[in-house]
This record gives sequence, C-alpha cells and structure tokens, in this order.
Amino acid sequence: MSETARPAIVLVRPQLGENIGKAARAILNFGLTEMRLVAPRDGWPNPSAGPAAAGADIVLDQAKVFDTTAQAVADCQHVYATTVRKRGVTKPVVGADGAAQLIHAEPGRHAILFGPERSGLETEDVALARHILTVPINPEFGSLNLAQAVILVAYEWSRLGRESVTSALVQPTAQEETLPPAAQDELDGLIGHLERLLEPRGYFLPPTRAEATRRTLRSVLTKPGWNHLEVRTLRGILSTLERDRHPKD
Amino acid sequence: MSETARPAIVLVRPQLGENIGKAARAILNFGLTEMRLVAPRDGWPNPSAGPAAAGADIVLDQAKVFDTTAQAVADCQHVYATTVRKRGVTKPVVGADGAAQLIHAEPGRHAILFGPERSGLETEDVALARHILTVPINPEFGSLNLAQAVILVAYEWSRLGRESVTSALVQPTAQEETLPPAAQDELDGLIGHLERLLEPRGYFLPPTRAEATRRTLRSVLTKPGWNHLEVRTLRGILSTLERDRHPKD
Repeated sequence: MSETARPAIVLVRPQLGENIGKAARAILNFGLTEMRLVAPRDGWPNPSAGPAAAGADIVLDQAKVFDTTAQAVADCQHVYATTVRKRGVTKPVVGADGAAQLIHAEPGRHAILFGPERSGLETEDVALARHILTVPINPEFGSLNLAQAVILVAYEWSRLGRESVTSALVQPTAQEETLPPAAQDELDGLIGHLERLLEPRGYFLPPTRAEATRRTLRSVLTKPGWNHLEVRTLRGILSTLERDRHPKD
Repeated sequence: MSETARPAIVLVRPQLGENIGKAARAILNFGLTEMRLVAPRDGWPNPSAGPAAAGADIVLDQAKVFDTTAQAVADCQHVYATTVRKRGVTKPVVGADGAAQLIHAEPGRHAILFGPERSGLETEDVALARHILTVPINPEFGSLNLAQAVILVAYEWSRLGRESVTSALVQPTAQEETLPPAAQDELDGLIGHLERLLEPRGYFLPPTRAEATRRTLRSVLTKPGWNHLEVRTLRGILSTLERDRHPKD
C-alpha cells in the first residue's frame, strides 16, 4: 500500500486536547499516523492530549497545525467532510465504507475533515470537500463523539485495505491454524466405534428403524467437520465409556 | 429485521461503570439495545454509568446482570468471544464484519462477549463461544478500549443490516431448512451428561489435567453447532451408553 493511500485525519477547530489525544489513539490502532489540526481552540501542543493518546505520541508529535481548513488540505486531491446530517448538500454522500473504498481506489492524497465537538463543520469547511462522509446512525439517538467518528473511518480504511489484498470477507486468517476435517476413513472409524458400543445396548432396535437411525447418527457426526485431533479425542472418549466405572465408585 | 437478529452485547466482569455507560452509548448509536453484564466489578447499578451513557439510559435500565458468563448466554444459539489475539485457538476467527454477516444470516439469538478492560476474556469464557471475533489492529499499537471495540461491532452490524436488504453476502439460501444451533443451556446439558459418564471412569485424571481436558471436551462439542434435534439425539445416545449391555450379549 503506497503512502499516499493513507488519508490525513483533519480535526477542524477541535476543542478539547483530550479528544485530540483520543483521536490519535484511535487512528494509530488502524495504522494511520497523519493528523492535521486546524486552529485548535486551546493552542498546540496541548498538555491534555498526551495522556489521552495512551501511547500514540508519534501521531501527536507529527501533527501539523494550520490556520484555516483550506490550508490544511491544500496538498490533497480528495477531501471528505464528515457530517452527521446531510444538510441539503448537493455533493455525493458516502459512508465510512464508501470513503474507504475511494481512498484505496483513487490515486492522490486524501483528507478527511472532522468538525469541532459541539457544532460540527461549518458550511465553508464542507465547501472544500468533494464528498460528504456520513455514518448512518440511529435517528433517535445520534451521539457519536469525535474520537468514535474518527475510529470508524480509520477502521474502514484498514478493513478495506486488507480486503483488497485478500478479498475475503470472513477472514481465512487463523483458518490456517485450524486443521482441515479428518479424512473420511477416520470419521468412519469413529462412527463404527460408536455403533459397536450402541448395538449391544439395543440402540438400533427395532430392526425396521435401524437404517434410519444409522443415517441420523452419521449425519450428526459428519456435520462438525472435526479434524483428526478432535476425532482422536472422541475415540478416547468412546474407549473410556467402554471401560467399567472406576473401582471406588 | 427480526428482533432476534439484534445481538446481545455481553460485558464480562467489566471494571469501570463509566465504560459500561460508554458501551451503552456506543451500541444505541447503531440501534442495539440489549446489554448483559456478567459480575460487574463494582456491582449494579453503578452511578458512574449513567453520565457516561450520555442519554442511552434505556440500554442501562434494561441491562440484565448474571453471575457467570454461561448463565448470560444460556438462551443464545451463537456466541462470539472478542479477543485481541488468537491465542492458539482452534475456533473459526471472524472480524467485526464477518460476525455481522453471520448475525444477519443465521437464525437464532447471537451474543458477543467482551472481556474486562485490562485482561480480556478468560479461557473459560472463550470456551463458550463458537467463533472468535478479532478486529485486526496495528500490531505495533494495539490499544482499542472496551467502548471502541463495542462500537466497531455495533457499527458493522448496522452497516451490514442496511446492506443485506439489497444483497446478502453470506448466502441465506437453504438456511431456512437448517435449524439454528441449540441454545447454550441445551449444549451445556449435553456436555454435563457426557462428563458425568466420563468422570467415574477416570477420564479426567490426573486432576492437574482435568480443567484442560474439560475445555477440550467443550471445544469439540461446541464446534458443530448442533441444533436441538441433534442434541436430543446425542442425549439419547448417552443414555443408551449408560445402560448395561443387552442381556443376550
């Protein structure tokens, strides 16, 4: 993934240093490191930011400060304005997932604008953007804070970056750690073993039902797709059940 | 979307009331309302939760408290354990997106387990789950807090719920014919039954290995996702094995 595929996170007139730190922490979790600050209310650096960043100091240390939003995105080809509502704008609206797709697909530098905690972006900030980024939330309870909005965008960027490599939605990762199902003959050995235990106890009676009962048994034991270790465990269980109870019982 | 398609968010031994409140706020943003608490450290209700919930009182008011994780998910067919690392588990691993797909595709009740802030889920909590839920994060800076992990899962559930209206990603075909997995308490009944048979035959000896052996047993029997008919069949098999051999043998 080229460096330019990493979007810059632009906090426009952020109020609390703590929220700047939280946003830094949020994006570093997903491998983003570039933060730009437009006229932070309490100046910069802000002593409240560091503790809230919980170790994401690299993001804060490299943060660049700008006087205006226009200056902050001057070198960017693609600007997204994050808003809660689509206030009658005539720009294309994307979700966090749609924005992430565009970032991975379109060459050039991408910047995502987030407004101040209380008020959100002003109309002139939004005017700089070609896309509106809106995360659809519960219309009866919209209460995403700044760091949460930032983390969702960073998460989607990371998720779709991985996806474009593997194109797998349910990750096959760690599936490598998971063994494949045991070979059919091992499974047959397990089923045969269980049948030999059940037979003398009358499980397959009456004879007219025996075939259907065997089918059900096979079906239940085939469904899991147990690997050879699991089949071995189950063989051990059956061997134990063959044994008499412990003398002291 | 049916009510059962909404997963329960299960906070296992959460420490700070503030984080419970933040998690409530996080999920209500995306339309989830059911929170379950397992042995919250500072009891329940917790006066710190309300202010942090920022208006998501409905979630806190309806939160149910349980003594154990097993009790909290007893009525659930699908349990996901959220972990940061895939500590050598042999369960299928899904991301927040994969879990959301499964929740929308598979009938039955779904529960997502989140561990305590510092330590994460214990091995015995993870043993209850059929899937591991891991959000892939920056390997050099993994610092997702509880509410952030919760919000990503809730976000994906909401996002894919909207998407699945148009095109299902995991094919729901023939799923109508397939019964959902049995509820967790039925599965526990099966596991308990087998353990009662194995115990007097020395299967759990030596005592130092007993816990690991029980975990393996649970893991092997959790993997299949047997439905209630299949669990009933297996209970019948165990009852048969308890019987003495047929007189004529």
